[in-house]
Amino acid sequence: MAQSTEILTKAELTWKESAKDVIADLRELASLTSDKDGAHRVAWTPVWDKAQEWFKAKMKAEGAEIIVDSANSVWAKIEGETDEAVVIGSHLDCVPNGGWLDGALGVVSGMGALKRYGKNGKKPKKTLYIVSWADEEGARFGRSCIGSSAVSGALDIDEAAKLKDNDGVSFLEAIGRYNLDIKDFPKAREEFLARNIKSYLEIHIEQAPVLESQGKSVACVYGITGCERQYITFTGQPAHSGSPIYMRRDAFLAAAQASLAFREIAKKYEAYCTVGKVKVEPDIVTIFPGKCTISLDQRCIDGDTLKKMYQEAIDACHTAAKDNNVEVEFESVWSIPPTIFDEHLAELCKDAVKEETGERTSMYSGPLHDAAEIAKFVPSIMMFAMSTNGLSHCKEEDTPDKDLELAIAAFLRMTEKVVNE
Amino acid sequence: MAQSTEILTKAELTWKESAKDVIADLRELASLTSDKDGAHRVAWTPVWDKAQEWFKAKMKAEGAEIIVDSANSVWAKIEGETDEAVVIGSHLDCVPNGGWLDGALGVVSGMGALKRYGKNGKKPKKTLYIVSWADEEGARFGRSCIGSSAVSGALDIDEAAKLKDNDGVSFLEAIGRYNLDIKDFPKAREEFLARNIKSYLEIHIEQAPVLESQGKSVACVYGITGCERQYITFTGQPAHSGSPIYMRRDAFLAAAQASLAFREIAKKYEAYCTVGKVKVEPDIVTIFPGKCTISLDQRCIDGDTLKKMYQEAIDACHTAAKDNNVEVEFESVWSIPPTIFDEHLAELCKDAVKEETGERTSMYSGPLHDAAEIAKFVPSIMMFAMSTNGLSHCKEEDTPDKDLELAIAAFLRMTEKVVNE
Repeated sequence: MAQSTEILTKAELTWKESAKDVIADLRELASLTSDKDGAHRVAWTPVWDKAQEWFKAKMKAEGAEIIVDSANSVWAKIEGETDEAVVIGSHLDCVPNGGWLDGALGVVSGMGALKRYGKNGKKPKKTLYIVSWADEEGARFGRSCIGSSAVSGALDIDEAAKLKDNDGVSFLEAIGRYNLDIKDFPKAREEFLARNIKSYLEIHIEQAPVLESQGKSVACVYGITGCERQYITFTGQPAHSGSPIYMRRDAFLAAAQASLAFREIAKKYEAYCTVGKVKVEPDIVTIFPGKCTISLDQRCIDGDTLKKMYQEAIDACHTAAKDNNVEVEFESVWSIPPTIFDEHLAELCKDAVKEETGERTSMYSGPLHDAAEIAKFVPSIMMFAMSTNGLSHCKEEDTPDKDLELAIAAFLRMTEKVVNE
Repeated sequence: MAQSTEILTKAELTWKESAKDVIADLRELASLTSDKDGAHRVAWTPVWDKAQEWFKAKMKAEGAEIIVDSANSVWAKIEGETDEAVVIGSHLDCVPNGGWLDGALGVVSGMGALKRYGKNGKKPKKTLYIVSWADEEGARFGRSCIGSSAVSGALDIDEAAKLKDNDGVSFLEAIGRYNLDIKDFPKAREEFLARNIKSYLEIHIEQAPVLESQGKSVACVYGITGCERQYITFTGQPAHSGSPIYMRRDAFLAAAQASLAFREIAKKYEAYCTVGKVKVEPDIVTIFPGKCTISLDQRCIDGDTLKKMYQEAIDACHTAAKDNNVEVEFESVWSIPPTIFDEHLAELCKDAVKEETGERTSMYSGPLHDAAEIAKFVPSIMMFAMSTNGLSHCKEEDTPDKDLELAIAAFLRMTEKVVNE
């Protein structure tokens, strides 16, 4: 008895103590998988394997059951009082020379939650799973969200079978080294559905500077913007840099005019328009471009507004084409409607944020996340921790400890609410 | 005697008959060196050799002396009554899949002039040279005007020695196949200076649509614009396409704003501003550019105005940088003052144009030509034949026969004036 009173059960740890433990685990993971150039947990490489094994060992030590699903996502499970289940998910893989938080924050915070209900903790009402999704970044083979899209049903295995890395190694060969067969990947969906999952929770760094600019550490994420993505090609007639301005059909200047107009559309609707790729032809100093292709990525949390923005961008391109006496063509490459997360979970999430910070901070996400896939068929919610300078996908990616502690503590509070209701 | 009266000496051919003969020679050259994809007379390749040999044989048949200078430019010479000399020059090489007129028009018109003073013609007062400059286009090794810059002294043989083509063949290896040594190239200047050359004449296609738009066939070219060429790099901070517009430091939008401002500068001064190269980084659909480098080529026939334009472009870049919260840096890569051709030759040239067309049409050139190099130390003049649609460097490059005839006839008239005064 004397001894047992000395053991503080993990459920009795304060939220802050648990959060500090999560940060210690994040630093341990970083030290195992990073060097001065950043983190190297690229999926389907030995450093990622090391991270996944670290996750398994830590969870096993807490008394969790370890399951590797048919798409190589790793699950840790603690039985609850009922078979209804809650999942906390994110990813341990990262881009080359990546940061210590993108993805890892979500999985390791899940580990922190599980520790509160593990062998030294209190049995939760609902069964709790932590999932480390396989290959969220798609850094090596160019296809993102392998693990989560296998579960959502969005993974096209015929397309996946064609993937190759920059060294010519095929995706099939890479997964063969894990004794995996692409034909088995869709089974991960059946496995997921068999788990009676009622809620999906994810915490992620913001990857943008909004919270930082508002002096906030953490927010409930009530939705993810929809996206319209297209390539736009202006075609004029290239000619020598000594040909008269008034006779030119300069495709680049048309693209420049349209790109500046896109920004005005984004401002008007307080949404997002991004020209990320730009290619001019012939791309020669002494010839003005006869062809210019740009990418346009438009995002908005409201579906109807997104449609308006899309149409106004098309109109702006036609105006720019006319003004510059060039032609314009459009190639739509991707379209996804906005995701609005589960209302009830959003309330619990805002409650948890308020308990830690005093404010029910709530925002939507511009960047997309796995949660948008899962939210299609399971009530889901996300939480954001602020990002220093909005940076991610680089070794400079960071969140100060004081902000991380608040965010993780809020996430653990939310998990407690969801798991025990 | 009876027989000699039957022979029409070439000096007695009308200008139009000579012009038609030049066009026939141009078509013969095209048929020898082109196919459905255009002309293939790229310098230092067998098809160019074929063109140079064709030139030599044609000129030898007229009684001309053939000289190959130390930089592999080919000269044909007809002795005049005095040792003062006139040169007609241009080039027989072309870009891959090039046209039938760029360069060839000048050399073959020179051949037409020489024919009027060859073995069946009248001995000219001044000695006449026709030169086919080696490698004007620089299409294979990236360095233009090899032959003419060897003569002007502008060719850096150490730099030339480093050149390689796309297959990794070095310039030294390529010229070695002609038994040439790069160390001998500067001797071409001494050879040139020993020829007592008093005037340099060149006819070229316009490569822009000005004459066509004015319904004119030919013009005296009284000068060539000066040029300020630089690379401009805008540096902001790349971030995700889901980050807020008002916080962005988008380098591409700064470059777009500056590029549109450059066009206004060009319009204001009725001159030229061209953004030909554009590179964004990281060039990813979901990230707005943190870096954008553009080339700016500015041209004007007036040196002081060119300086003003240059400064206004710098100012426009600083404004665009400030408006978009990014940095800007400048790297000047080339600067050449305007060339104003010899006044006396320009008068003779306009007289000749008037005799053919009724108008003393005169213009300046936006594109640069070898003549700008030669004009540094020899009185020079150029003439332009109109270009259909302003096109050149492509198989569509063309000038209708009626316009070509007028232009070549005017050029032959001018040559007559210069050679015999």
